[in-house]
Amino acid sequence: MQDLARLFEPNSVAIVGATTNPYTVTNVTFLRQLLDFGYPGRIYPVNPHASEILGLKAYPSISAIPERVDYVVCAIAAPQTPKLMQECVATGVRLVAMYTAGFSESGEEGEKLEKEVVAIARQGGVRVLGPNCLGIHCPKAGLSLAGSISRESGHVGLLSQSGGNTQHMILGLAESGIYASKAISFGNAADLNESDLLEYLAQDDETSIIGIYIEGIKEPARFARVLKQTASTKPVIVVKGGKTPAGSGAVRLHTGALAGSRRVWDALCGQAGIVQAGSLKELIGTIQAFVYLKPPRGRRVGIIGIGGGANVLATDECETAGLVVPELPPNVRDELRAFTPAAGTGLRNPVDTLGEVYVDPAVLSRTVSTVGGWSGIDVLLVSFPMLLGVRLGVQFLIDGIQAVARGAKETGKPVAVILQTADCAEGESVAWDVQKRCLATGMPAFWTYGEAARAVKHLIDCAQRGTPRRSPRPTGAAWRKELDLE
Amino acid sequence: MQDLARLFEPNSVAIVGATTNPYTVTNVTFLRQLLDFGYPGRIYPVNPHASEILGLKAYPSISAIPERVDYVVCAIAAPQTPKLMQECVATGVRLVAMYTAGFSESGEEGEKLEKEVVAIARQGGVRVLGPNCLGIHCPKAGLSLAGSISRESGHVGLLSQSGGNTQHMILGLAESGIYASKAISFGNAADLNESDLLEYLAQDDETSIIGIYIEGIKEPARFARVLKQTASTKPVIVVKGGKTPAGSGAVRLHTGALAGSRRVWDALCGQAGIVQAGSLKELIGTIQAFVYLKPPRGRRVGIIGIGGGANVLATDECETAGLVVPELPPNVRDELRAFTPAAGTGLRNPVDTLGEVYVDPAVLSRTVSTVGGWSGIDVLLVSFPMLLGVRLGVQFLIDGIQAVARGAKETGKPVAVILQTADCAEGESVAWDVQKRCLATGMPAFWTYGEAARAVKHLIDCAQRGTPRRSPRPTGAAWRKELDLE
Repeated sequence: MQDLARLFEPNSVAIVGATTNPYTVTNVTFLRQLLDFGYPGRIYPVNPHASEILGLKAYPSISAIPERVDYVVCAIAAPQTPKLMQECVATGVRLVAMYTAGFSESGEEGEKLEKEVVAIARQGGVRVLGPNCLGIHCPKAGLSLAGSISRESGHVGLLSQSGGNTQHMILGLAESGIYASKAISFGNAADLNESDLLEYLAQDDETSIIGIYIEGIKEPARFARVLKQTASTKPVIVVKGGKTPAGSGAVRLHTGALAGSRRVWDALCGQAGIVQAGSLKELIGTIQAFVYLKPPRGRRVGIIGIGGGANVLATDECETAGLVVPELPPNVRDELRAFTPAAGTGLRNPVDTLGEVYVDPAVLSRTVSTVGGWSGIDVLLVSFPMLLGVRLGVQFLIDGIQAVARGAKETGKPVAVILQTADCAEGESVAWDVQKRCLATGMPAFWTYGEAARAVKHLIDCAQRGTPRRSPRPTGAAWRKELDLE
Repeated sequence: MQDLARLFEPNSVAIVGATTNPYTVTNVTFLRQLLDFGYPGRIYPVNPHASEILGLKAYPSISAIPERVDYVVCAIAAPQTPKLMQECVATGVRLVAMYTAGFSESGEEGEKLEKEVVAIARQGGVRVLGPNCLGIHCPKAGLSLAGSISRESGHVGLLSQSGGNTQHMILGLAESGIYASKAISFGNAADLNESDLLEYLAQDDETSIIGIYIEGIKEPARFARVLKQTASTKPVIVVKGGKTPAGSGAVRLHTGALAGSRRVWDALCGQAGIVQAGSLKELIGTIQAFVYLKPPRGRRVGIIGIGGGANVLATDECETAGLVVPELPPNVRDELRAFTPAAGTGLRNPVDTLGEVYVDPAVLSRTVSTVGGWSGIDVLLVSFPMLLGVRLGVQFLIDGIQAVARGAKETGKPVAVILQTADCAEGESVAWDVQKRCLATGMPAFWTYGEAARAVKHLIDCAQRGTPRRSPRPTGAAWRKELDLE
């Protein structure tokens, strides 16, 4: 374990297959990323036909590099990889991330080659990520796979068999000021596999919550054990690729993995107590809920929004996600009626405020504290139509959101916000701005009730299973600075 | 029917309950909208305490208006509505849209009042929309419910029991250059109900496709008949509110309707041959597919995209939506291998192009025509990562999309584009621009594979049921002008 920790924070990196053309995938994905992210260690481009690459001295081979290299990214053709691995062994390289494809995912010959390369590495004490992967993202060490995000370290550990999905998760989470401790793209899992890496993240103190994209499992019995152990110490949220027959075929061709039976997988997740998300978006939203929300004590949700039809669909979405939408009792309705201009009809939950409540922050705040103050409500979902922001100015929405946050604080109940865009470009453009402001008040923000409800439901399930919550810090320094919060 | 047609294109409108404060909901929703949209008929604000409202002469009552008014919007308190309706009868008003709430949705007393008002209207030959509705959107007549969209008429007829959802559908569709012929918000359906209005849209020559948001049904037997008749002449896409028990309770409090059994509803839709969409977003996406895509001849989809993991999830989403993802035969794979730099692994469908293909429009175009050229493929879904546009410039994406359109044209097969945003603000900001460019080539664009697959599946189902396709013109004049297409 401590070995792995050391592997993921290398002091020197070699990119084998870097090119003089600055725009090749290898350069864009690895070399330029290291430079842009400001990797503080030594960087060695390796290419037998170049003396300089992107301003750095290039070396013809790993052996030609004057120091022992910690981390090697291999981006050369598959047939050349055994020779490279022998050099890595000979020079004492610690970890090789094989970006190269054309191994077990491509058929029998590739499988043989994969075994050969891994055997060389194992005999020589070199660990391997991949093949068919992007390797390590570790902001603390100055390694990034995701371009233009903040350099700060966060508390989410990410594991993924897909490099693109690793980037997707890193970038999507960064929108909510949530950063990775480490993200590891491990492709075909020929050497370091899902169990090794999850064990590592389970004991990593910098990791409070774990997100996984997985296609197939190398050691099913061990993984079931590791999953269960891990989920007893921190929340684990997983997206499984290849849950349909055709998807399972695609998995075989992507990482050479056996996607396995959906039923077995579902049972495993249930037994281990991990959260299954249906998409990367759901995984991102769920982690947002875990980071920003105190777990609700139960599933009973109060819905506050504008528009009867929108509230009907919101109710359907909450109930479909497994939440309960209880009717407010007469005394709470009377309390609401005493200060809201809304007619009696929209005060039972969902609470339809007819828009007028939103114009007066004090009334909005009191609506939230009154609904949330009832003991029959565990969590509140409050929606804002972004088009009102387009018409009345974004400040109008921000005032409203801050009013909701004040009301929420009074009740002590968790509150999430829904940014309703009406599927319009204008609404979307406002929403991203408003989302940041919303997070700054400590409330998570979602685009739809369905997303919010599923995320909240996952949070409740974990809390009821007793998964410890290691209170990850939500927003890092850079992000808070961007919001003028410091 | 012809009566209804005349009702929906009024020459004069009175807003009863307009206020001197320009920002009340009534003014913003109705009066200012008429002014902003450039309603060409006469507008009469009615308020006994005002002589002028928003620059227009105000009248103390309907009776005080010097001409017979065609269309009255009623936005006064419920108890005052019987008197207003008597005046409408006395002065020969044709149609009243009752925005006022507090009727059957609010309990027994409201139900009684609703019956009283409708009885007055019916005896006097006045038709009523609502109560609890926004009334009519009819660009041809200069009436809008949705603010800042184009004034041109389109070919989508919309019916909705929710005013907010009416606006949502109008605005969401406008993003794809798709406009309404008429949109009718009909709330509690106390007089004109879902069957009356659907019959009208069924025979309306300006309406080629129909979208519905419905909560409850006033005349179930008649509606089943009308639905079936309508679906035999043009596509009908429906979102049902209140499909869950709590949602059904919310329906009762919104429009006073009985949401009914989910099973009965599902059976009715199946028998009638109408499309059920699970959300307004799905309804909007489905209409987009109907407007822009020739119906595929079958369910076999070719997937072209960047990234193995993204393609695995795309495959799962397509299969979950009911599409089939067949493996490409060896000869097609060989053909692809001859000109693409991708290794053999990603050429079976999904076709993983490793990004490099996207850099060369000619290769991308040929990839599309090769995959689409195989007789085993009925429809293609091609994805573009929006973050590449952020890095390499939007023109890069536009060139790629035009290359896809050329490849699609060669095969004659329908192609839809997926704009993958990685759930990032940067990605989203590019996507809206790219979407318009994509539509300009005649291909619809979606945010996710799931949305695209569901929309395409609905289109195939309708074609296989034999629903006539009345080829709605996709993009109106104003929209094409905005895109510099004319």
